[in-house]
Amino acid sequence: MQFTTEQRLDDDIREREFTLGEIPGILWTPGSTAEPLPLILLGPPPLGLRTAYPRLLDRARHIVAEGYAVATIELPWSGDRPRSAAADQAVADLRRALAAGEPVDDGIVDRLILPLVDKAVPEWQAALDALLALPGIGGPVGYSGGVISIGTRLAVVEPRIAAAVLFAGSYVPRAIIEEARQVTIPLYVLLQWDDEGNDRQMALDLFDAFGSTEKTLNANMGGHTGVPQHAGEAAGRFLARHMR
Amino acid sequence: MQFTTEQRLDDDIREREFTLGEIPGILWTPGSTAEPLPLILLGPPPLGLRTAYPRLLDRARHIVAEGYAVATIELPWSGDRPRSAAADQAVADLRRALAAGEPVDDGIVDRLILPLVDKAVPEWQAALDALLALPGIGGPVGYSGGVISIGTRLAVVEPRIAAAVLFAGSYVPRAIIEEARQVTIPLYVLLQWDDEGNDRQMALDLFDAFGSTEKTLNANMGGHTGVPQHAGEAAGRFLARHMR
Repeated sequence: MQFTTEQRLDDDIREREFTLGEIPGILWTPGSTAEPLPLILLGPPPLGLRTAYPRLLDRARHIVAEGYAVATIELPWSGDRPRSAAADQAVADLRRALAAGEPVDDGIVDRLILPLVDKAVPEWQAALDALLALPGIGGPVGYSGGVISIGTRLAVVEPRIAAAVLFAGSYVPRAIIEEARQVTIPLYVLLQWDDEGNDRQMALDLFDAFGSTEKTLNANMGGHTGVPQHAGEAAGRFLARHMR
Repeated sequence: MQFTTEQRLDDDIREREFTLGEIPGILWTPGSTAEPLPLILLGPPPLGLRTAYPRLLDRARHIVAEGYAVATIELPWSGDRPRSAAADQAVADLRRALAAGEPVDDGIVDRLILPLVDKAVPEWQAALDALLALPGIGGPVGYSGGVISIGTRLAVVEPRIAAAVLFAGSYVPRAIIEEARQVTIPLYVLLQWDDEGNDRQMALDLFDAFGSTEKTLNANMGGHTGVPQHAGEAAGRFLARHMR
């Protein structure tokens, strides 16, 4: 992990950009801190970190203010990372189906999401190795947001993640719903009831499938980006309860 | 409204039992207060106030501590109020269907719930008239808990209710799901995902039907009486947001 830039934001948050091999990332920490910090991995939307930066920073500010370190990395094939022809084709097929008002078939969802999960999850684990090796970051570790299939797989395979906030805001392959049965950590799932880019019944099936005995679904009105402030705050309280 | 008993509980809560005609009720208020208080109507489960008292008192304590008056009244045909042969028959039919593992047909649900709603809602409105006429109680008014079909009808017909917390914990007639489309006040719906006495899909259909632009579904694991403390607290924060 190589730090490439460092700045202090005006509310005394320290923002450091880094690269982990070819993968860019950002680490936010409180300006001053005595103890090793717990860490929240902030899953980005698949827009590229540069495009998503204002929203990510807004969420990071709130989380850092509660005394956490917050880190995110660029998803595969997003931002300035190399594209994938297969992923581009899957996105084009999805858009064509949606534009034609056709149901989105499982094949498209599988081609869109499964390779992304396969590639992203080991990258997040490598980032976690590097982040926990930094002085001042001690854990426990939580995961919040982003592509729900990535969060689900991470929750299955990565024992260092203590609790996760997942956003039911993207298509989910049936294989991931099966994997979800193996998740046992506490979960807080945010669902936008009228999300235009999401299948509500699939989100409910996924919530039902999670094996966790402690899981909450917090569903609110509105579209994909309309998560109300009170729901974000409730997710923050969930993480605070499980990361003491 | 006639007060019949008054006591101070050990945390300086004033508890007064009353009767409103033939209907018993309980009013809890802070021991001392300067201003007119906002009021929460606490819908009881259909067990009778005496049986439900420990749970109701626990919830009332938390709400009174936030600076509200809290009141509840006995449901029709519950507690010491006169029974209804038709309601008893509907309960017996429901129990027989459940014991036989049969689906609960709409006819049973309609016979069980619709007469209860028709009788209870005007009683709650009469209680509201009497409560708001008391010195020290000024509104705004919220509704919390109890039989969700009663809360739904009240939210439609009673303009003095500013916001409602509803518990998706009982069978809902299809006619009530249709009425729900007329509800426009902010709603916070608690759902126990594995509630043995509830049809989950019907609860989700009801949530979907509510006409409110501001509505939250907070679903948690476990059975009917297992609502976790954090969900109750979240419902309390919802009321506080909408009853300022």
